[in-house]
Amino acid sequence: MQLYYLPEAAEGIVELPETEARHVVQVLRHGIGDTLDLVDGRGGWYRGVIVEAGKRRCMVELHRQRQEERRAPRKVTIGIGPTKQADRFEWFLEKATEIGVDRIVPLLCAHNERRKLRLDRAEKIVVAAMKQSQQAWRPQVDELTPFDEFVATPPAPARFIAWIDEQVTQHLQHTYRGDEDVVILIGPEGDFAAAEVALARQHGFTAVSLGSNRLRTETAGIAAAHIAGLAIERSR
Amino acid sequence: MQLYYLPEAAEGIVELPETEARHVVQVLRHGIGDTLDLVDGRGGWYRGVIVEAGKRRCMVELHRQRQEERRAPRKVTIGIGPTKQADRFEWFLEKATEIGVDRIVPLLCAHNERRKLRLDRAEKIVVAAMKQSQQAWRPQVDELTPFDEFVATPPAPARFIAWIDEQVTQHLQHTYRGDEDVVILIGPEGDFAAAEVALARQHGFTAVSLGSNRLRTETAGIAAAHIAGLAIERSR
Repeated sequence: MQLYYLPEAAEGIVELPETEARHVVQVLRHGIGDTLDLVDGRGGWYRGVIVEAGKRRCMVELHRQRQEERRAPRKVTIGIGPTKQADRFEWFLEKATEIGVDRIVPLLCAHNERRKLRLDRAEKIVVAAMKQSQQAWRPQVDELTPFDEFVATPPAPARFIAWIDEQVTQHLQHTYRGDEDVVILIGPEGDFAAAEVALARQHGFTAVSLGSNRLRTETAGIAAAHIAGLAIERSR
Repeated sequence: MQLYYLPEAAEGIVELPETEARHVVQVLRHGIGDTLDLVDGRGGWYRGVIVEAGKRRCMVELHRQRQEERRAPRKVTIGIGPTKQADRFEWFLEKATEIGVDRIVPLLCAHNERRKLRLDRAEKIVVAAMKQSQQAWRPQVDELTPFDEFVATPPAPARFIAWIDEQVTQHLQHTYRGDEDVVILIGPEGDFAAAEVALARQHGFTAVSLGSNRLRTETAGIAAAHIAGLAIERSR
């Protein structure tokens, strides 16, 4: 099923954004009377009937099919240092969205090799992955946020921090029970500075392991999101 | 720690392959007396001391440090249809190796869009990922194998098949207990044919879900490998 994203979706007749309109009319050759499935990125599912199909303008009559109350019983937030290679971080965004995550906070850490982020590109990737994986929730992607600022105002009661340290052997899957909203911090390629780990601990973050293999930053991000999702699924 | 891969490693003086020799001597500027850490891809860890350092020839005296009996208490095999885009399958190979897997069997299914595989490239990717993630086990990557042939001779007692079917709701994490070697089949982009699913079931494969989101083939492969690894870790 092809899904369309319409953040401003509401009952009634609406105009599709031009890029979506072109795809619907010129690529897929849809015409008046054809139906589309749309999501609003906030849990809303809509069925649309095309009432006007021009080259750049496509008008659709929308009917709300259902409203999901939330993506999953608990919210998952991943705070992560963007990788030096942009494609590795973009891959993380795509896979985290597919597997399921509510919020991604790119972190500006002491050892980041990358200190800029193209948020417009990031948002395109999560929207495409949301549609591809047939979900109605668009993960929130924050602006690049200073590490100190983020850990001082953690968005969830269950708080974990993962970095490369052979002395941390407590596995996230044994520590997080899936019964609370959760935030997990993943170190950048240069890893967290000792002062960052100490600050996170002061703010209630528990050190965890994601397994015995040394994972790349983007792989650790996916593994953390997946472990959290599996724990939430188990606690249902 | 930089790891080197030497499949023929053994105690005594050995010559590094030319590509590794060039990296050691010309890129990293190592010289006589410097030490290297090496793995043989079969659980063996070696410490090497450079005894000759030419432009193309590097001789190393090897001492075995330890021999791991196996990668993990149970073996994980993923059978998967290669994706149309080569980079998505290569990404799967890299991430499956990082997260931990013993064997990857690219499957030739009825609906495969890709019907060829560059095994030499696949092997380079898993070797790089093995070294990167500090492991001593190189996953075996099979030649592209006909689906029917593979399911008729399954390599493990715990057997699962995952494809897109909303009626299969039994989650792999509740079905596989981590106490046996396991093989999990992941459908190609065109998904398994009904006859393939039926054949797998005849050979003792149980249908499982990897969660409610629709995952791309390469993401499903990673999710399956990760769920199996987490179950094995829990059953220790």
